[in-house]
Amino acid sequence: MASDLEEPFHTRLRTATVHAVFLENIETFITQLNSINHINLFVTELKEEDTSCTMYPRPEGSPSQTPSVSGQKKVDVVCDALRKAMESMNPNKFCLSILTAYVKKTVPELEVALQKVHELRENPPAAAGAVSAEEALKYLLFLVNVNDLYEHSLGTYDFDLVLMVAEKSQKDPKEYLPFLNMLKSLEPNYQRYTIDKHLKRYRKALVHLSKSGEEHFTEVLQLVKEQKLFSEALKLYTTDSPQYKRLSSAYAEHLVEQQQAEQAGLLLWRCGLPARALQAFTSCSSWRNAICVAQQIPLPTDQLALLARDLAERLTEQRRYSEAALLLDQYAKDCEEAILALITGAVWEEALRLIYMHNRQDITETNLKPALLEAVNSQTGFLEAQVATFTRHRSRLAVVREQKEKARLDMLDEEGPDCPDAELYSEASSVMTASKYSQSNSRISSRSSKNRRKAERKKLSLKEGSPMEDRALMHALSEIISTVDKMREEIHSLLKSLVLFQFDKQAEKLQLVYEEALQTMEGAVPEVWPEALLNSNTPVTGPNSTANSIMASFQQQQQQKPAASQLDPEIPTAPKMKNGVKWKLTILK
Amino acid sequence: MASDLEEPFHTRLRTATVHAVFLENIETFITQLNSINHINLFVTELKEEDTSCTMYPRPEGSPSQTPSVSGQKKVDVVCDALRKAMESMNPNKFCLSILTAYVKKTVPELEVALQKVHELRENPPAAAGAVSAEEALKYLLFLVNVNDLYEHSLGTYDFDLVLMVAEKSQKDPKEYLPFLNMLKSLEPNYQRYTIDKHLKRYRKALVHLSKSGEEHFTEVLQLVKEQKLFSEALKLYTTDSPQYKRLSSAYAEHLVEQQQAEQAGLLLWRCGLPARALQAFTSCSSWRNAICVAQQIPLPTDQLALLARDLAERLTEQRRYSEAALLLDQYAKDCEEAILALITGAVWEEALRLIYMHNRQDITETNLKPALLEAVNSQTGFLEAQVATFTRHRSRLAVVREQKEKARLDMLDEEGPDCPDAELYSEASSVMTASKYSQSNSRISSRSSKNRRKAERKKLSLKEGSPMEDRALMHALSEIISTVDKMREEIHSLLKSLVLFQFDKQAEKLQLVYEEALQTMEGAVPEVWPEALLNSNTPVTGPNSTANSIMASFQQQQQQKPAASQLDPEIPTAPKMKNGVKWKLTILK
Repeated sequence: MASDLEEPFHTRLRTATVHAVFLENIETFITQLNSINHINLFVTELKEEDTSCTMYPRPEGSPSQTPSVSGQKKVDVVCDALRKAMESMNPNKFCLSILTAYVKKTVPELEVALQKVHELRENPPAAAGAVSAEEALKYLLFLVNVNDLYEHSLGTYDFDLVLMVAEKSQKDPKEYLPFLNMLKSLEPNYQRYTIDKHLKRYRKALVHLSKSGEEHFTEVLQLVKEQKLFSEALKLYTTDSPQYKRLSSAYAEHLVEQQQAEQAGLLLWRCGLPARALQAFTSCSSWRNAICVAQQIPLPTDQLALLARDLAERLTEQRRYSEAALLLDQYAKDCEEAILALITGAVWEEALRLIYMHNRQDITETNLKPALLEAVNSQTGFLEAQVATFTRHRSRLAVVREQKEKARLDMLDEEGPDCPDAELYSEASSVMTASKYSQSNSRISSRSSKNRRKAERKKLSLKEGSPMEDRALMHALSEIISTVDKMREEIHSLLKSLVLFQFDKQAEKLQLVYEEALQTMEGAVPEVWPEALLNSNTPVTGPNSTANSIMASFQQQQQQKPAASQLDPEIPTAPKMKNGVKWKLTILK
Repeated sequence: MASDLEEPFHTRLRTATVHAVFLENIETFITQLNSINHINLFVTELKEEDTSCTMYPRPEGSPSQTPSVSGQKKVDVVCDALRKAMESMNPNKFCLSILTAYVKKTVPELEVALQKVHELRENPPAAAGAVSAEEALKYLLFLVNVNDLYEHSLGTYDFDLVLMVAEKSQKDPKEYLPFLNMLKSLEPNYQRYTIDKHLKRYRKALVHLSKSGEEHFTEVLQLVKEQKLFSEALKLYTTDSPQYKRLSSAYAEHLVEQQQAEQAGLLLWRCGLPARALQAFTSCSSWRNAICVAQQIPLPTDQLALLARDLAERLTEQRRYSEAALLLDQYAKDCEEAILALITGAVWEEALRLIYMHNRQDITETNLKPALLEAVNSQTGFLEAQVATFTRHRSRLAVVREQKEKARLDMLDEEGPDCPDAELYSEASSVMTASKYSQSNSRISSRSSKNRRKAERKKLSLKEGSPMEDRALMHALSEIISTVDKMREEIHSLLKSLVLFQFDKQAEKLQLVYEEALQTMEGAVPEVWPEALLNSNTPVTGPNSTANSIMASFQQQQQQKPAASQLDPEIPTAPKMKNGVKWKLTILK
């Protein structure tokens, strides 16, 4: 049992284990190589791939390796480990290898390498054979492009270092000296900002600029807007400072442009710009926030009422009737409009609540009851139409499938009974026909799989004889089932209100129509999605199954199951019906 | 093309077509048989099966027949058609066959048959060779049990007919005469009610009893309760009658016992029993109805407030905090409690709305902000725990799968390379082990498939080495994904409130933790559910596929796809993540 367990662990952790062994014995490795050149060569040849996999591929089916166990890259781990070992063993002797280890990291640490060179020049090592600053710099220039090195030396803000590199380069002193002199004349933070900006290190530039005095704040704002460093900038100022407010305001403007008005509103509100926050919240129907801000301002009652009406209108357009009603009732103080909104939205119980709350039972007679009767009619009609379409599609699907089956059998006859691919043709025929129609779309495969699915769905046509008609029908049937199934809560609520007002006959009719619709659809699922039936009704494994019974049903399924389901992920699946939702009233028979 | 279409239509409609041809030529059929006896034999031998299917089975795979096209049973359709034809051809000649056609319907129409006999006695036909009432009754007694016939003769409420049948039977006149005399003495409706009740025809009994005068209403109520004929009874009285009210009240009592308190409340409310309706609505937390009834009564303000508090408490227990808050705010007039309920329920925006509405900004400091900070901590902790469990299960799943794979390969080695069932053992081995543990559950298969699934899920144990451990792990992983995925809206709302109150650091941390959790889970799906990956990433059909490419990938999939997915419907499926729900704030980095 122990060896059973060992093997997979070992396989899975192979890379990690190799690393660990290497890292533990790194000093031995360095000592054994015994050559600066060889170490340099080893480091420069490091690659971010697991050669234990790429050079010695493992058998197919083994679990794939994650590229890194710790989250760090292999090259960086090895570089850092080697460098640290060499620094502790003999920094002078391994000087060039140490520089190599800095430069070869996935993000080269050129500044640190340059700093080392600078130190060599400041404090030349006394040891015999130690590398001089000159030699080290020459070596770096051999590894790294001179312009890169010059830029990075600027990034250390150390002008001695910059000059050292510049002198070694082919650069014209007439070019770089004026620039360096200009920099030297600047206030330290502003100097660093100028360098950072020159090096396109905008985040660092922002930090230095923010420290360089209030007189530069316009430049801060400019930089933040240009480089979209809003979040970063906000962190550099206290929340009660005027800069924080101006930055928030600029950020909010940007967010509104990005269709993020609600977040813009939050920023404006919290930094003390309620009027603009109100505008932002209103524009995106973030009505609770809008109302809160309005009351904080505070807006006069009549203007608050207007705001509430404006928001209610937006919400009504989005069919958010309950929220619209709340605004009309509580802030516009117009209970009648509120009740009408609820009736329009078929939120019957809440409508009745407001009717009783405001003692407006007259609206029950004038609006609620007529609306209930209208709703029961339209729902009944809608359901009958859905059932009719459903039945038509279902019959047509049976016809299309028989035609396909016949075509398949005909092909089987032609090919002779031994043709092993006969099973395939049933599906392939439809697909081949389809490809004929879609040659112009051959670039479709480069799109994302989501887009492809969308595009494929578009190709589905319900037109009789269309190449994928069966799938289009299945898709349409599935949509109808979902639509009708989703109505459970809505129907339940309507039935209750109908009963309350003694509209028992209408309620009974609706209950009957809806029940029949659900039964029709549920009953059709096994025919429309035969695999679903197979899976749910004939489980092959279970407490009573034996190895033989399992094998038998496996072989049987292999024969019965249409090839289609294995071939194509795009076959619409059977919708899951929410049979857990109890919608029927027992008092209606 | 025309013949292509004809065949399937013909096949599908075979039964219907046969029926139609038969029904159109029914007189010819009767004329050709030319024998009362043969007709009687034909009718008595009719069976409710489609012999065109059962005697001549169609090839497997043809669409199955629905038992009836019109919804009516075949036997009834044929009986009625024959009878009508004979009645129009020669009712005297075919008298016995006509009786047979009544008696042989799936629900025998014995009363009508008896009525025919009665008519023969009242108006003996003049035609030569016509059947006498005597002969007809004898024939009926030959077809039907005498007691059945006696009971049904009672059901005609025709005492002459009853006596005629009784005389033909072996019954003792001392037995039946007193009973018949007693019946004759009763008021007509009450008489019919007594007969109906004797025959256990309770619906008819109810109708007759309800017509027999108000003095019998206690009996109506008794009958309705005993036979649970509430809905039927309500239809027999006008909605404003005292009987309607008493029936509604009895029905409501019954409904409350059946855990249908809301429907009970509706009945009580609409028939003018608001106090009891209020009780019913309150008991099932149907708070809107409860409040409306209370205001209709009308309850005094202080009692309404108490009711609102009672309802709010019930709703809080059900974690329906928003509704509880509405009651506390609008009916108990306790905005502080309302705001606290919303804060407890993490309904941040609504809490803030009430804070501003009631000018209670003090609660922001004392309760809202501390609750936000507590929420961010608990959510972060919860997410970290979920991710930890997820990662542990995922690693363990990889180990279990490798062990299984190794066991499979070992078995393959033992059986030799030609063993065709090797693929199967990988799954079968786990199932066989499972069946060893579940022999005591062998009666499980008689349960519904839903119960079985539940039972199977219970058997899944996460204990290391448990026979279905891999599935238990997949199930647990799926649950964690669903739980975490469901939190999108909740996290979004919390993040917004945190930002509003300048808790940016905490919000950033939460956003990071949640994003990492979602990424971890989404990233694990292809590994945990490899089939899902296969289906979504390597579509084999598409605009660029050819018949050859489809066949190639089909064969490849046959080899690659683990046998498990075809064998067992109970393998937990990959949860669908709601990536459409945008929860992240762009202002947090």
